[in-house]
Amino acid sequence: MFSKILIANRGEIALRILRACRELGIKTVAVHSTADEDAMHVRLADEAVCIGPPASRDSYLNVAAILSAATITGAEAIHPGYGFLSENADFAETVEAHGLTFIGPTAEHIRMMGDKITAKTTMQMLGVPLVPGSDGELTSLEEAREVADKVGYPVLIKAAAGGGGRGMKVAQTAGDLEDAWKMARAEARAAFGNDAVYLEKYMDRPRHIELQILGDNYGNVVHFGERDCSLQRRHQKLLEEAGSPALTAEQRDAIGQTATQALSKMGYRNAGTLEFLYQDGQFCFIEMNTRLQVEHPVTEMVCDVDLVREQIRLAAGEQLGYTQKDISFSGHAIECRINAEDPDSFTPCPGTVAVYHPPGGLGVRVDSALYTGYRVPPFYDSMIAKLIVHAPTREQAIARMQRALDEFVVEGIKTVIPLHRRILEDPEFQKGEYTIHWLEQFTAKPH
Amino acid sequence: MFSKILIANRGEIALRILRACRELGIKTVAVHSTADEDAMHVRLADEAVCIGPPASRDSYLNVAAILSAATITGAEAIHPGYGFLSENADFAETVEAHGLTFIGPTAEHIRMMGDKITAKTTMQMLGVPLVPGSDGELTSLEEAREVADKVGYPVLIKAAAGGGGRGMKVAQTAGDLEDAWKMARAEARAAFGNDAVYLEKYMDRPRHIELQILGDNYGNVVHFGERDCSLQRRHQKLLEEAGSPALTAEQRDAIGQTATQALSKMGYRNAGTLEFLYQDGQFCFIEMNTRLQVEHPVTEMVCDVDLVREQIRLAAGEQLGYTQKDISFSGHAIECRINAEDPDSFTPCPGTVAVYHPPGGLGVRVDSALYTGYRVPPFYDSMIAKLIVHAPTREQAIARMQRALDEFVVEGIKTVIPLHRRILEDPEFQKGEYTIHWLEQFTAKPH
Repeated sequence: MFSKILIANRGEIALRILRACRELGIKTVAVHSTADEDAMHVRLADEAVCIGPPASRDSYLNVAAILSAATITGAEAIHPGYGFLSENADFAETVEAHGLTFIGPTAEHIRMMGDKITAKTTMQMLGVPLVPGSDGELTSLEEAREVADKVGYPVLIKAAAGGGGRGMKVAQTAGDLEDAWKMARAEARAAFGNDAVYLEKYMDRPRHIELQILGDNYGNVVHFGERDCSLQRRHQKLLEEAGSPALTAEQRDAIGQTATQALSKMGYRNAGTLEFLYQDGQFCFIEMNTRLQVEHPVTEMVCDVDLVREQIRLAAGEQLGYTQKDISFSGHAIECRINAEDPDSFTPCPGTVAVYHPPGGLGVRVDSALYTGYRVPPFYDSMIAKLIVHAPTREQAIARMQRALDEFVVEGIKTVIPLHRRILEDPEFQKGEYTIHWLEQFTAKPH
Repeated sequence: MFSKILIANRGEIALRILRACRELGIKTVAVHSTADEDAMHVRLADEAVCIGPPASRDSYLNVAAILSAATITGAEAIHPGYGFLSENADFAETVEAHGLTFIGPTAEHIRMMGDKITAKTTMQMLGVPLVPGSDGELTSLEEAREVADKVGYPVLIKAAAGGGGRGMKVAQTAGDLEDAWKMARAEARAAFGNDAVYLEKYMDRPRHIELQILGDNYGNVVHFGERDCSLQRRHQKLLEEAGSPALTAEQRDAIGQTATQALSKMGYRNAGTLEFLYQDGQFCFIEMNTRLQVEHPVTEMVCDVDLVREQIRLAAGEQLGYTQKDISFSGHAIECRINAEDPDSFTPCPGTVAVYHPPGGLGVRVDSALYTGYRVPPFYDSMIAKLIVHAPTREQAIARMQRALDEFVVEGIKTVIPLHRRILEDPEFQKGEYTIHWLEQFTAKPH
């Protein structure tokens, strides 16, 4: 096992990793920008090294400074957290070239999944389903009909050269197909000088469902079930659940088996997440994140696993030590991301936290680097806390989250706590009936 | 289900009950003394009623004021928490006589278990083991020998009229018995004018192990395993664990079955705890607490149950809805009681909390009514927070507790946090090798 780890991140995730290290008896090195001198992760780490000025490119993305910090302090491994350098294959390679361990997958896998096209082709080859549709360009309306009948309506005719929604038409039923075909081709010709089109199943009510994976260095891969991350605004997740209100245990098992088989064939190691669009029983792979996710705690709560501890163990060369049948799912977990933002306009609101008082009690977990008197710097992501609850049922988890939000005191800056309160009391949310479009519609409504 | 509950308590337990009510959609009425106007339970309750001046006898023990508060606010039930009126049978009776529900067992059972002699005879009749020994007074040395051979050495010869350790002699082996018999009788005659003696198995290395019970109003009783509460100083528990490092699952099942059968025969309802001295596989009932215990959270963590929610449900007349086989035990939990006391002299240290920052993250639970700026009043119990951790193994739970204690900031008053740190790093504690005498010896040692 490592005796010292450098944490190449800041905020709550730096603290999260630090906590796992402490519990494993591993010394920690914090790195920080000049804006983060008083940050919690710096205060709690065994050692701290300043790696540059506030701008991320000069500090948290400063590979040379981070590697120097690791060398100076004698750290044996680097945990990148999420964001910053966590999906930078060059960084992973450089870390390993310096004789240190990168706590994550191989540079090759990071690179492969970083290219969204390669990621899709690779996954398809490995048996993971993509959005069903034509095998490339359509040669005729008849072929379009055949494919549409096979994948089921509604379908989307899309310009092969397309982008930005142009040359893209929906056929709700077979009766609409000819019109959609003609209009898409006409638009494509006009916009791109190329009327080649292809066809895809149109998911009009998709959910964003992702699967947590762990693999060791010996080909053993397991999954820890799904997270429903459909509640997004401008592709930013705001509230996540495990499990998904839309999935049965059988559906989870089936997609889990497909995914673990694929990643085992790849020789994937450490933590990873497969993201899917999901509708009516159909999973369509969209991308893979080759790192720890912000929302990993909901998985930890329902599976009773410490994913960061596992990442460190696996990076140190330990075997998983358990198999899929040892992983069980208990109760329901919800995470609310608390951002320092105006809850109506979503404008970031950095500033000094006059009072910080987190909620407590049974089934409540708070991952946050805030404290009373902390100055939230304006240079980084606005997420300042994650509030996670766990309870035997989704209904109880919602009630627990509501009471926890009511107890949460963050004064001096604006946060999205009021928005979370509104979401949690919404009947549609309570019924679990939401898609990836729900939150944008919800936040657009007057209240 | 109730629509409004009055919480006849203060501090962390008032907040604990309030949280359970909130999650059940039940309105809460806080009561408070004039010293507790700014208390967290008062701030968070739906309604609050002042019931008297600081002294407990005039406020938290003021039955008339509490019943008036319930009547005025239209509360339908009263949760007494622990301490104060929680084991006062007259209070329970008066509450019911006013047409309100007392959230706890019947007044009859509270009274029965409140009398320690009756409690023991009742439990013995119901098949629960007591400390083994003679059936009352011994008539001869020969009889003493027979009983001692049966229960096994060491044994204790005790004055029937005794108290304060006088007329009490230990016989470590059969060779010591005659001397012990003679000396105990001589001392008893001199001290009490009565040389009648009896014999008991002497437990020289006992642990305090207690069993959590829940019963509904229909005779269904289950147990939630044991808590090891051996770490006590002057009969005050300081750190509790679930499960006990000394017990096997088979031993837990056996004593659990004995206890649930006994309480089912009694018709016991709501929460209760059977306390035992335990040594070498032998459980000896000492007393029963007919209320929620301070240390109930460790049980909640390993059994994934909300005991306060269950208490409320059962008091409302709901059935348990599950049986013993539905209750499983997962991982290990530890609770550290954080008292506002000097960690060396144990002198209470009330005062203003300059900074309060609780630990967070995976597997950490904080039950506390503290906040930054709160003034700990000098009138009540010195316990100001409970820090509870849960992890897959005892070793991991200890590591988690250590890192959580390191994160815990309570400035402005002294607390026993440094003592807990010392306990947790002690090799004997880490091995789980401790008895009810361990903590007093530990705290007496220079450090």
